[in-house]
Amino acid sequence: MILGNSFIGNQQKGDGSLQFKTFNPSLNKDNEWSFIEVTALELSEATELASQAFKIYRNISDDKRAGFLEEIAFEIDSLGDYLIQVYCQESGLSRDRAIAEKDRTLFQITSLATFIRSDWRELTKEDAEPDRLPKPKPKLEKTYLPLGPVAVFGSSNFPLAYSTGGGDTASALAVGCPVIVKSHPMHAGTGELVASAIIKAAIKTGMPNGVFSNLNSAGIQLGIDLVKNPNIKAVGFTGSIKAGRAIFDIANSRTEPIPVFAEMGSVNPVVISPNSLENEADHWAAQYADSITQGNGQFCTCPGLILGLESNHLKKFSSLLAEKIMQVKPQLMLHPNIHSAYVRLGSEAKNSENVFELTPSMNLDSNYAGQTILSVKGKQFLSNVNLHNEVFGPFSIIVSCADQEELLSVINSLEGQLTGTVIFDQTEKNDFEPIIEELKYKVGRLIFNGVPTGVESSPAMNHGGPYPASSDSRFTAVGVQSIRRWIRPICYQNRH
Amino acid sequence: MILGNSFIGNQQKGDGSLQFKTFNPSLNKDNEWSFIEVTALELSEATELASQAFKIYRNISDDKRAGFLEEIAFEIDSLGDYLIQVYCQESGLSRDRAIAEKDRTLFQITSLATFIRSDWRELTKEDAEPDRLPKPKPKLEKTYLPLGPVAVFGSSNFPLAYSTGGGDTASALAVGCPVIVKSHPMHAGTGELVASAIIKAAIKTGMPNGVFSNLNSAGIQLGIDLVKNPNIKAVGFTGSIKAGRAIFDIANSRTEPIPVFAEMGSVNPVVISPNSLENEADHWAAQYADSITQGNGQFCTCPGLILGLESNHLKKFSSLLAEKIMQVKPQLMLHPNIHSAYVRLGSEAKNSENVFELTPSMNLDSNYAGQTILSVKGKQFLSNVNLHNEVFGPFSIIVSCADQEELLSVINSLEGQLTGTVIFDQTEKNDFEPIIEELKYKVGRLIFNGVPTGVESSPAMNHGGPYPASSDSRFTAVGVQSIRRWIRPICYQNRH
Repeated sequence: MILGNSFIGNQQKGDGSLQFKTFNPSLNKDNEWSFIEVTALELSEATELASQAFKIYRNISDDKRAGFLEEIAFEIDSLGDYLIQVYCQESGLSRDRAIAEKDRTLFQITSLATFIRSDWRELTKEDAEPDRLPKPKPKLEKTYLPLGPVAVFGSSNFPLAYSTGGGDTASALAVGCPVIVKSHPMHAGTGELVASAIIKAAIKTGMPNGVFSNLNSAGIQLGIDLVKNPNIKAVGFTGSIKAGRAIFDIANSRTEPIPVFAEMGSVNPVVISPNSLENEADHWAAQYADSITQGNGQFCTCPGLILGLESNHLKKFSSLLAEKIMQVKPQLMLHPNIHSAYVRLGSEAKNSENVFELTPSMNLDSNYAGQTILSVKGKQFLSNVNLHNEVFGPFSIIVSCADQEELLSVINSLEGQLTGTVIFDQTEKNDFEPIIEELKYKVGRLIFNGVPTGVESSPAMNHGGPYPASSDSRFTAVGVQSIRRWIRPICYQNRH
Repeated sequence: MILGNSFIGNQQKGDGSLQFKTFNPSLNKDNEWSFIEVTALELSEATELASQAFKIYRNISDDKRAGFLEEIAFEIDSLGDYLIQVYCQESGLSRDRAIAEKDRTLFQITSLATFIRSDWRELTKEDAEPDRLPKPKPKLEKTYLPLGPVAVFGSSNFPLAYSTGGGDTASALAVGCPVIVKSHPMHAGTGELVASAIIKAAIKTGMPNGVFSNLNSAGIQLGIDLVKNPNIKAVGFTGSIKAGRAIFDIANSRTEPIPVFAEMGSVNPVVISPNSLENEADHWAAQYADSITQGNGQFCTCPGLILGLESNHLKKFSSLLAEKIMQVKPQLMLHPNIHSAYVRLGSEAKNSENVFELTPSMNLDSNYAGQTILSVKGKQFLSNVNLHNEVFGPFSIIVSCADQEELLSVINSLEGQLTGTVIFDQTEKNDFEPIIEELKYKVGRLIFNGVPTGVESSPAMNHGGPYPASSDSRFTAVGVQSIRRWIRPICYQNRH
């Protein structure tokens, strides 16, 4: 049952007087549950508990922490169909999607459990050389320590996989960092259920009180106070550039600055070759109609920009894409705020000078979003930086470039991206070399002849990228190496 | 011959009208050479060249870059005795020290060359699984890319090893990042010679013009402009907390924030046990008199704080240390600014309430610094945070703690440190467990029964630590893993 309380460590608390509700996009009305805004005192208790818990938790063995993670996965799974129902009620997403995302979440947690049972610290040992000249060499051992309590801000678009019990939480807990989640107010019920599962697992496996807290808040002040709190030693964030940058700035302006890994915006450019347009237009139009509408375009890897050389084939592909994407049944947006942002930013883009709309406008019920494909010439795209911004939803702009040089300029004009995609055949390899060279320094992942949606959770994955795709391109948010964000080296010299 | 110009890529330029000189502490007067303050135009040219050079340099093979590094080492070595003379003239340090530091610098460069001929990218490959359900798995390959041009601010206290051709420059060049050094104005002549060696090596091995620049400036504006320049993609810094933090703040307030690795201040606490004080006071007093005066205390790992439990043995050790340190011949400070800061901060500490001076004050010629050992009780140390600050020079405070609890409070009250040291015998292991546990979360390196000075340049070393020892404890400034500061992962999906 959802009570609307925060978890301050193992204890449910809701002393605040302010309340908020989540929204059901399918029914176009608020859900029944009320959530109680966490108080400043409760926040302070949670961070103090986390700091105390850290002293114990950091010394719990890898094997026991792995057991804790596995128990979390078990307890989330044990929430059963109720979790799926609440997820759907708070997101407007389908049951299939909810179940697939839950499975992904469990997989992420259990793969981290397996990983931390391995030699993840990569212990580097060097023997003493007492007879070395001019000076003896000491014995050295390099290992890693957890940074301390981590604040996690989950995303709105993955209520399970990148939220309360998602990758940031699991990777921090895996290496010995307590976690305080600021629950996403758009799916606070889903968050409460997952939090209750984590707390159950913590108690069952004997983890210290405070290893995990879950704070309810619909405002922004709590997030600011959380990041400023001296007990917090790192931050994980998934969301918009604006919010991510604000958190990054707060963290860096602390007396003791702390690392922030913020996974933010991306338009995920795709470059499609003349031969692909000529010979495989149908195939790629179908693939991209599907990719752009995955999760109703509310994926951070949604391909929002498709670049090609001006030609009749590009025109034909553009029409095909527009046609195929219109065959997809319009879906609900996650929340009225995301819906209205989509409508507003989409309209601004559509109404820009020299931009053409290839998809007919649709007359839709509230909370539904119409798919949108726009087209613009390279020159115009270059001169209008507003078109470079992400429009979060089932939306993509096709940029028709006069020549290869202009295409390279367009790539060069883009900010950092989570992904880039190139589509070409072997005979075009030489032409694509400079494109790949330009693109790979802009992106965290480069896809060949595919679509950017679908992020494998595995060691070879990288989910991040040059700013503003992420706040620090040297780390990944996905895969077991995501733990690197929360640990630091220490060298023991002549330890006996 | 030293001309006082900057290197804007391969070209020497000195169009500016402002000049400055370096200082000879031994002769207590300026050196003969004049250095020309770089102009804004020259800075802009250097960053533009670096950005262009990056496009070529990033694709040069590991083997060729390694060859470039080896050639740099050869060319620095070929500067011969002139480099040693200039080094001594600009630092007041001894010939022996100059030669040892040169050898260390060459070793750092050549070990990085060896390292990048190995599998440093740790390529992670995963095969495609086309039949996987519910979705096929793509082929994934994770590797690393260089970030781009790096700005390097060298230290004043290591004119070779942590400066123009030091660890930051060598590690950035090793992985494919061009480097722009803001030459340290206190050893601009040494910097010019090393820069000329790097440029010679770059030309000889066919590296692109702009892969390295060396800028002369005695002011702070150039540093600000350099860090703000959009062509710069990362910063390496070694120096004071004040300057390091300023650079960190500038880098983070850019439209596109960039990573800064700043290695800053540290007092390097040492905890010495009752048994060690009772049985080995002579030994440790001698070791610490030597360690505190290494490089005249102008080492970032100088032990500035010695903690012990109140006892007659601690008193005896304190007297012995004061006595032995007075047997060391007073040495020159690097520069009048460092000298005057030492005198000022040292006096402030000495004149603090309840602080006792164990060393007699000395009547010294200008630029010489007298060794200073102070003593204070734990309670007083805890209540006076000014005593927690680094006094750069041959200076250490002995803190006498009432009991173990107070000693733990003192450790807990400290900021992040490069190193911490524990000295105890096996029978005291249990008592030292909580001390080690507290200390290890404060430091980047923990030394057992030794001294903190002497930083091995090897893979198991860590030189960094929690803020403010460094701006990001997740990286090291020393050892081959120092390259991690300048690279980021990229994943290729289904690359063909």
